[in-house]
Amino acid sequence: MTSPAAHTLIRRIQFADTDAAGVAHFSRLLVMVEEAEHDFLRSHQIPILTETSAWPCVSLEVSYVGMCKFGDDITIELRILKVGTSSVTYEFLATLNGSPQASPVFSGKMVKCHILPRQLGAVPIPESIRDVLARFLSQET
Amino acid sequence: MTSPAAHTLIRRIQFADTDAAGVAHFSRLLVMVEEAEHDFLRSHQIPILTETSAWPCVSLEVSYVGMCKFGDDITIELRILKVGTSSVTYEFLATLNGSPQASPVFSGKMVKCHILPRQLGAVPIPESIRDVLARFLSQET
Amino acid sequence: MTSPAAHTLIRRIQFADTDAAGVAHFSRLLVMVEEAEHDFLRSHQIPILTETSAWPCVSLEVSYVGMCKFGDDITIELRILKVGTSSVTYEFLATLNGSPQASPVFSGKMVKCHILPRQLGAVPIPESIRDVLARFLSQET
Amino acid sequence: MTSPAAHTLIRRIQFADTDAAGVAHFSRLLVMVEEAEHDFLRSHQIPILTETSAWPCVSLEVSYVGMCKFGDDITIELRILKVGTSSVTYEFLATLNGSPQASPVFSGKMVKCHILPRQLGAVPIPESIRDVLARFLSQET
Repeated sequence: MTSPAAHTLIRRIQFADTDAAGVAHFSRLLVMVEEAEHDFLRSHQIPILTETSAWPCVSLEVSYVGMCKFGDDITIELRILKVGTSSVTYEFLATLNGSPQASPVFSGKMVKCHILPRQLGAVPIPESIRDVLARFLSQET
Repeated sequence: MTSPAAHTLIRRIQFADTDAAGVAHFSRLLVMVEEAEHDFLRSHQIPILTETSAWPCVSLEVSYVGMCKFGDDITIELRILKVGTSSVTYEFLATLNGSPQASPVFSGKMVKCHILPRQLGAVPIPESIRDVLARFLSQET
Repeated sequence: MTSPAAHTLIRRIQFADTDAAGVAHFSRLLVMVEEAEHDFLRSHQIPILTETSAWPCVSLEVSYVGMCKFGDDITIELRILKVGTSSVTYEFLATLNGSPQASPVFSGKMVKCHILPRQLGAVPIPESIRDVLARFLSQET
Repeated sequence: MTSPAAHTLIRRIQFADTDAAGVAHFSRLLVMVEEAEHDFLRSHQIPILTETSAWPCVSLEVSYVGMCKFGDDITIELRILKVGTSSVTYEFLATLNGSPQASPVFSGKMVKCHILPRQLGAVPIPESIRDVLARFLSQET
């Protein structure tokens, strides 16, 4: 069951997302996960790229179990697993729209780190942002 | 005939450059033209992206006449057609390696403008850079 | 004024569409034009990539006049200028949402050719498809 | 220490690989890992995309520890960790060229599965290909 904490993005596989094997390229599917993340942050007025905030990916775990082709719509569900001092761990699951029982396409975890743009080293997430993120912590245990 | 002023880049069509129609996506071929341009600029110590120089594309004309598939190598020939106050007009031709008579894949013109990064409005190309560029002006008339 | 024949797509500039100069990369903006084209074709049940139809780009003319940054929304207006035996000429104009007087970002023309996938050579557009396309021919003269 | 079984690719970060935070986008770095894989397969005459072979990514684990910017060169070292009935597990490490002690940029594991193109389900890797792959199994234990 979808927890109330999930943020959902529906994304069509565009032609430029596909490759010569006829399906979405694995790297482009990860771009869509980031689009879901940014859509989540934006919808809660959390800055994504400013003078004082950027969120590079520091860790990724993905399992690809299904194919999606040009023109397919997938639904990406994003949940927050953990809010650290300077990082956020997201869990994601993408399913194929219109398929019986919403067949999974890929799933995984992604850790985004809070930094000052163009500078090395993590920077603590400001309190006000942490409060918003914490409200979306997944309660599934 | 290849003019001495041509800068040449050989580029393999990578998997992520292709699309579900089985060939290189038209947008990725333009990325390769820019790679050839940057290779040219770099080989002549012309700054590409610094505090005082960036070169966005302001105009593009492309004609696609052949296909190239995953794993194909193409040769991109770049020539300078014109050096303006704050812009450079390049001419490019891409041919398929290993094909009889080097079949053309695509060709066109691209105008790059000299600006200060993240600011609107053209900025005159510094004299020292203009001098270098002018040496490569194509003599074909 | 927007002609009734225009097909419109609103597209957000995603992070992966941007480059180190801080704006949308020129090649990704063309991907968005193709997304608008496919959205148009799909909305009229015209096949985009099947056993008997594919639409590679054979010609492109683009003028970039403004910048768009990460998170900006642009509106792409697509019009059909010409329906040939085996090609369609589109005209496009992208403007920046939320800007005074909808500042233009880029505009141009794109010719898409009808072919059998993975085969060289144009193939006449089927009558039924041509009829649909012809209804959207721009009347501006 | 570099095992003799490592396959190495040097890759420049191109402008279209970067994003508005000024560094290579995490998804594009994975494209470069695949380029290294394909370079390895090609150099051993192993088919990459034919009527009977395709190698989609089924699993990915990546840790990003450093930044790389436009124009940087990175060295990607690829090793084979495991050759299964129908999959190959690669280990990769990317380091920044010209940096003291070759600072790591990212590293991880990638599992590629052998399939018939455009069909679901793993297909055993042909004996002749398995033999070649097995020769490169990393001996590090």
